[in-house]
Amino acid sequence: MSDNLSRIYDVVVLGAGPAGENVADRTSAAGLRTVIVESELVGGECSYWACEPSKALLRPALLYAEAARMPGVGAALARPIDAGAVLAYRDRMSADWDDHDQVAWLKSADITLFRGHGRITGERRVTVETPDGPAVQLTARHPVVVCTGSRPALPPLPGMDSLRPWTSREATSARTVPSRLAVLGAGVVATEMATAWQALGSRVTLIARESRLLPRVEPFAAELVAERLRGAGAELRFDTTVTHAERAGGPDDTVHLTLSDGSRIVADELLLATGRDPRTEDIGLESVELIPGQWLHTDDTFTVPAVAGEWLYAVGDVNRRGLLTHQGKYQARIAGAVIADRARGSALDRRPWGRHLGTADLVAVPQVVFTDPEVAAVGLTTEEAERAGRPVDVVDYDIGRVAGALQYLPDYRGQARILIDPDRRVIVGATFAGPGVAELLHSATVAIIGEIPIDRLWHAVPSFPSISEIWLRLLETYRDRRR
Amino acid sequence: MSDNLSRIYDVVVLGAGPAGENVADRTSAAGLRTVIVESELVGGECSYWACEPSKALLRPALLYAEAARMPGVGAALARPIDAGAVLAYRDRMSADWDDHDQVAWLKSADITLFRGHGRITGERRVTVETPDGPAVQLTARHPVVVCTGSRPALPPLPGMDSLRPWTSREATSARTVPSRLAVLGAGVVATEMATAWQALGSRVTLIARESRLLPRVEPFAAELVAERLRGAGAELRFDTTVTHAERAGGPDDTVHLTLSDGSRIVADELLLATGRDPRTEDIGLESVELIPGQWLHTDDTFTVPAVAGEWLYAVGDVNRRGLLTHQGKYQARIAGAVIADRARGSALDRRPWGRHLGTADLVAVPQVVFTDPEVAAVGLTTEEAERAGRPVDVVDYDIGRVAGALQYLPDYRGQARILIDPDRRVIVGATFAGPGVAELLHSATVAIIGEIPIDRLWHAVPSFPSISEIWLRLLETYRDRRR
Repeated sequence: MSDNLSRIYDVVVLGAGPAGENVADRTSAAGLRTVIVESELVGGECSYWACEPSKALLRPALLYAEAARMPGVGAALARPIDAGAVLAYRDRMSADWDDHDQVAWLKSADITLFRGHGRITGERRVTVETPDGPAVQLTARHPVVVCTGSRPALPPLPGMDSLRPWTSREATSARTVPSRLAVLGAGVVATEMATAWQALGSRVTLIARESRLLPRVEPFAAELVAERLRGAGAELRFDTTVTHAERAGGPDDTVHLTLSDGSRIVADELLLATGRDPRTEDIGLESVELIPGQWLHTDDTFTVPAVAGEWLYAVGDVNRRGLLTHQGKYQARIAGAVIADRARGSALDRRPWGRHLGTADLVAVPQVVFTDPEVAAVGLTTEEAERAGRPVDVVDYDIGRVAGALQYLPDYRGQARILIDPDRRVIVGATFAGPGVAELLHSATVAIIGEIPIDRLWHAVPSFPSISEIWLRLLETYRDRRR
Repeated sequence: MSDNLSRIYDVVVLGAGPAGENVADRTSAAGLRTVIVESELVGGECSYWACEPSKALLRPALLYAEAARMPGVGAALARPIDAGAVLAYRDRMSADWDDHDQVAWLKSADITLFRGHGRITGERRVTVETPDGPAVQLTARHPVVVCTGSRPALPPLPGMDSLRPWTSREATSARTVPSRLAVLGAGVVATEMATAWQALGSRVTLIARESRLLPRVEPFAAELVAERLRGAGAELRFDTTVTHAERAGGPDDTVHLTLSDGSRIVADELLLATGRDPRTEDIGLESVELIPGQWLHTDDTFTVPAVAGEWLYAVGDVNRRGLLTHQGKYQARIAGAVIADRARGSALDRRPWGRHLGTADLVAVPQVVFTDPEVAAVGLTTEEAERAGRPVDVVDYDIGRVAGALQYLPDYRGQARILIDPDRRVIVGATFAGPGVAELLHSATVAIIGEIPIDRLWHAVPSFPSISEIWLRLLETYRDRRR
């Protein structure tokens, strides 16, 4: 093996999405020579085929909807939303699928980039198959960190071969608005993309084996979203599966679906959004006696305990602790501190909420679904609490009765719920569904991670007239129930 | 004195604005017979001439401005904002200046209302001069609570007699848009109303003796507002006073102002917004040896210590602890608990953050200024910390560099600052200036009142892509500076 094909680094990171970039940032900042391996665009799914383009499609649609409902403004909206302008804007917010800026950032952070497909070949060893050169052997003095993320899980659909379906990638990067879009799935991708494309002019039919949208959020939130989506003209077919699917071919080249109730649907595009699989099927896991294609289980330091020697980490979607960019970045910050301190021989702080444990993964994972209305949730849902056998006091309030919400939109409809641990008297879960609640979520996240007793929270005064006054109403409701 | 002109209650509340209503709510809920005295509309300044109408004027204007700046939406806004529709909407959000609903609420909460002017006549005694009947003598078994609020402080302007100026009341309730509006002042009322009327079609000239807008917020926030206000066409004249003012009379009936720099301004209306005075000049304070027209100083239980016997309380604007509806309501909840527990002979909990002390007044008073952009602040500003001799670490970050902010508006401009107590390592102040930051404020309020250490706040993960990720950037900035 020639000298220039073998390299030794302190840290080898597989995958340059948000998780990988942030691990590398932390280890490089700690003085560890860090290399990152990426086979596609630096920046990952989030920058090009998920958060950024999806939000760029959704935000104009949601803003248009708010403007249309506001006295004095709605009448000024003389034309429908300009879908072409939104798609061009989406292109710009996705950096035109060019990772130049992110590559420059890696360089500024003193992180080496290898473009190519990386595979683990043994303890602390990775081979990178580069597109236009010989393979490179990388050795890590310290760990290898797997940040390869996730990909759409394609359902076993009869007729799949002919279908050329959209996945989340095509749904976020499509260059024209399909007249008729069928969406298979009920989760965040399905619901957000149904919202975006319906707003941009598609006639959307959403088909879900589930009995409602957004199965992981509180039912009242999903119901508000379903109501608005239906109001916008989308058709929602729950408790329904596809029994046959084919693309017609020929000049119209449409997708024909047969559903479990016997009905048929014709669409121009079909989005499959039925879940995510880990991107671990071809990264050499077999070389360290792990099973390719499976999620990588880690402990709270993001170390893979099934591999001896504490040299293999998994951060981001791939560890299945929270498939969200922000949670991957959080894990990356913690893992970076763990790696740096182990490298210098320091002991880890294994107390919950310390700098070496990803405690928030277990307690307070926030998520905003950018639908109409927005759904923002953190911590436990009622169903999760029940499933875990944790007693909680459930406190509900209609956000549409809050003065600040009515000022936000006069026909405001929304609902909030907090879950309170009755023994510790702290909040363990919160869900807000309604227009403009996205930025409200962090107040709940702070309350949960701070374990602030309810009696103290009474002193956190929400500004009038803001939607945040929902906090006062929730606390009052809880107080009055206990008397 | 005939029997029907004298009444005994447990609690007598003077003033049925938000503070008075909330005190009465709490004392009535505690089983104390409560009477409230109001000479104008039940609901007070907030409902009819402040928060509600001002926000109803501002929110459509701010939403229009956001929509105009959003690709795909701006082009659909073919017409200017419909000022007539906004004014009609404002009427509705001000309940058409009819307090029927609030009177019904008082009844439902078992609170007796006397309409008329109330004056204290001695210990626990109030006389109400009713508009259409004999005076009523009220005696309180427990306390009298003064919640009479504040009124505009009119500056000693030469020529005032002829002027018929707008105060905050006319500025929020005007039925037509003046072509030219002169605004005297630089505070929240002046700046919000300049923003609203400029957006609704007035040509606004703001004249301030101060050298900037919003003297009590961080200068960077005021600068962003000034920039947008100028960009919208308003003229801002700082370090300037009015040396002469008169209304012309005659058919055009315009206001003519001469300024300290010798220049002259002609306007259709003049708004005086140069501060607030307490409404205490005619409530009988002299009968208990207090000075009419002065603010009523209270301790943290909202008791007036200058009056012996703990029977006189002051809640809301009138105590000058925070001239904001939400802070008055907070004080009312605390005062209500104090009054109820004293009435039943229970000892007070005098620990900070307990149920009987208005600790947040001293530590975390939040305020959102609904300008373009919004300014949201809580706790100390840099200048307040300096003045108090409190060392703080000042951490700044450009909100326009946060991905979620750029998704909110692609040309986002904003700035954030947090102040950290270097010894306790907790946040003691926060200011956010930028579009859409109003609901973000409560996260800072919760962090401050919870006294959450910075190391723990790292586990409060902001959702991507939301503006809340400013929190991550601020913490990173603080971390990287300390290395």
